[in-house]
Amino acid sequence: MTREEARQLDAADPIAACRARFRLPAGKIYLDGNSLGALPADAPARIAHTVEEQWGSDLIGSWNRHGWIDWPTRIAAKLAPIVGARPDELLIADSTSVCLFKLLAAAASARPGRKTILTQQRNFPTDLYVAQGLAGMLGMRLRSVPADEVLAAIDEDTAVVTLTHVDYRGASIHDMAEMNAAAHAAGALTVWDLSHSAGAIELDLAAAGCDLAVGCGYKYLNGGPGAPAFIYVAGRLQHELRSPLQGWMGHAEPFAFDDDYRPADGIVKFLTGTPSILALAALDAGLDTFDGVAMRDVAAKSRALSQLFVDEVEARCAGEVRLASSRDPMQRASHIVFAHASGYAVMQALIARGVIGDFRAPDLMRFGFTPLYTSFEDAWTAAETLADILSTGAWDQPQFHRRGRVT
Amino acid sequence: MTREEARQLDAADPIAACRARFRLPAGKIYLDGNSLGALPADAPARIAHTVEEQWGSDLIGSWNRHGWIDWPTRIAAKLAPIVGARPDELLIADSTSVCLFKLLAAAASARPGRKTILTQQRNFPTDLYVAQGLAGMLGMRLRSVPADEVLAAIDEDTAVVTLTHVDYRGASIHDMAEMNAAAHAAGALTVWDLSHSAGAIELDLAAAGCDLAVGCGYKYLNGGPGAPAFIYVAGRLQHELRSPLQGWMGHAEPFAFDDDYRPADGIVKFLTGTPSILALAALDAGLDTFDGVAMRDVAAKSRALSQLFVDEVEARCAGEVRLASSRDPMQRASHIVFAHASGYAVMQALIARGVIGDFRAPDLMRFGFTPLYTSFEDAWTAAETLADILSTGAWDQPQFHRRGRVT
Repeated sequence: MTREEARQLDAADPIAACRARFRLPAGKIYLDGNSLGALPADAPARIAHTVEEQWGSDLIGSWNRHGWIDWPTRIAAKLAPIVGARPDELLIADSTSVCLFKLLAAAASARPGRKTILTQQRNFPTDLYVAQGLAGMLGMRLRSVPADEVLAAIDEDTAVVTLTHVDYRGASIHDMAEMNAAAHAAGALTVWDLSHSAGAIELDLAAAGCDLAVGCGYKYLNGGPGAPAFIYVAGRLQHELRSPLQGWMGHAEPFAFDDDYRPADGIVKFLTGTPSILALAALDAGLDTFDGVAMRDVAAKSRALSQLFVDEVEARCAGEVRLASSRDPMQRASHIVFAHASGYAVMQALIARGVIGDFRAPDLMRFGFTPLYTSFEDAWTAAETLADILSTGAWDQPQFHRRGRVT
Repeated sequence: MTREEARQLDAADPIAACRARFRLPAGKIYLDGNSLGALPADAPARIAHTVEEQWGSDLIGSWNRHGWIDWPTRIAAKLAPIVGARPDELLIADSTSVCLFKLLAAAASARPGRKTILTQQRNFPTDLYVAQGLAGMLGMRLRSVPADEVLAAIDEDTAVVTLTHVDYRGASIHDMAEMNAAAHAAGALTVWDLSHSAGAIELDLAAAGCDLAVGCGYKYLNGGPGAPAFIYVAGRLQHELRSPLQGWMGHAEPFAFDDDYRPADGIVKFLTGTPSILALAALDAGLDTFDGVAMRDVAAKSRALSQLFVDEVEARCAGEVRLASSRDPMQRASHIVFAHASGYAVMQALIARGVIGDFRAPDLMRFGFTPLYTSFEDAWTAAETLADILSTGAWDQPQFHRRGRVT
């Protein structure tokens, strides 16, 4: 493919105009929106208004005047078309890890007597750490099996199955509907981590029969560094389940200041403490970048972008890198991983040339394609730059081998 | 006292210049910094820089370039002189409720076999809810006794005593040293909630023999609405204790992406998920408002402000309101509560006249004195305005009886 052909794909792209919803740094091709989404163009003014007018001028009165008290549900409702759920099944709260703890604990207590939390080996690490900590507290066991053995490992001792829907390394996708059905047949619940799915691919949590899910606000949802996470609890389970990580914001009457906890009706009961209003304002702007966009179009562009990148890299770099994601675009989400023995240094050389992906040990170069702001020409240029770095050996310089604390 | 005499107190105030560190709304006297601290003058630019330069331009590279990874400890270190602790005993994380859950759980697991979490009736409600939820998870019991009976109730079944240091209603202060000594004599640990103490009065957590504490970032610390909370873990306990609410940010090597959790050394192990960087930037600016200020001067001004208010209110409104805080300035912290049968409406009338306090059911009008930005003239004017509203009956109008959702 030529650069001109890539540009023609951009010209025909039905969601190309969404790129203007972001403030992208000049001279860079940002392929790490799967780790930290780009800055929405509206976010600076939205945050400044929240800081200066709401916090600064209206102060404590903003809880009523600006409706801060409802932001965790008001903003969550914008996720409904993105994940395929009802607005009242969604909530913004805490971090992904804390939200996962809440939902795993709620699920475990809804299945008393069952002692197993089931997951896969090499799940996203923090998900394993959360489950290990909870299992220890509750005298349960965390059973980790290879990804393709989870389905068969569900049994009558399984209280809850927890999996990351899209693998953070290779972007492989679990079949949610199949897993949910198997869990339900055995009397277990499921908790999905949608961190690398939400905003990247099409989801229909209702149709897939999902029970519970969490997801990250700062990746494809563009909510800013360390943005709050989201919680999904299927409506049919909201009355039965409750989180033991309870706090005043989840109380039926938080301003009654009662000594005894009474959970609010519905999804709000999963709130704990007071949420960061500034972080919520940023996430609100992030979710607005999806306004009016069909996830079908996002997902189709995701597949087209990543396939272009795979094709162009393999055409130029045969034998030098190994595709570590699925070859089938329907079997992977919105990032691509290529393995290279010196992947860290190659990625640093790419970053020095303005192509920003990231690296995951031991040898994986990860490239995220965020359909709202990645263009086909970006994907083409990234492949061309990678090929040049590999063919010239430009990566093999001392400065590209030095490690930062965060890699 | 005359207004002129109040102004003379301001002229002699050694920390009067700190008021310029805040952007206060014109025409208002803000006496609710105990609920939401005012906007630091530096905060808008600090937050805008974090949003536009760090998130917007440097994107994922900011974790290294701007040291985001260290912000939870770097910013916490600014609390050391405010609470009387070593920098490496402090951490910024999550919400106060979530932090309390972590520390109570850590304390409970460090005292296996003991089945009681001891607290006081009418503790800050969310603290009770957190403890109730945890006790339910662990098969422990939460024992709540009247505040003055806690000391005698500590026994060999007590795993942990948890109290709010300063009462959120009347501002009475628990004797931390006495309680810690009694707990330790019985083999129990203590977890203090410093939400209405930190930044308001002098604290010396080390000298008082405190084990564990949490506190709020958005009250006297001026960190913005829903700011992250802080955690204190005495150095002598950091190796032994660990939180079961564990996540990747508390891992010894978060970027090794290991399947098994290994807690970091020191205070960092109490981190869980990725923190909101925008919320941290705001709290950083909030803590900088204490730069170079001795807490001894803050506490002395706090007592002088609140005493002026009590004296001036009682001189003008004898028989109409009842002081529901201690008469002894050494026995109360930095807010004052007056009871009035129609306290809600009186407070609304005050707010309409630009004097902003808050109301706590059933009849308490609460006035917070934040020494960094409240002047003696503010306190005098507030008393004068309250007296005028009461003497004229101006509060008894329909609009002052209408309730907001957040009261």
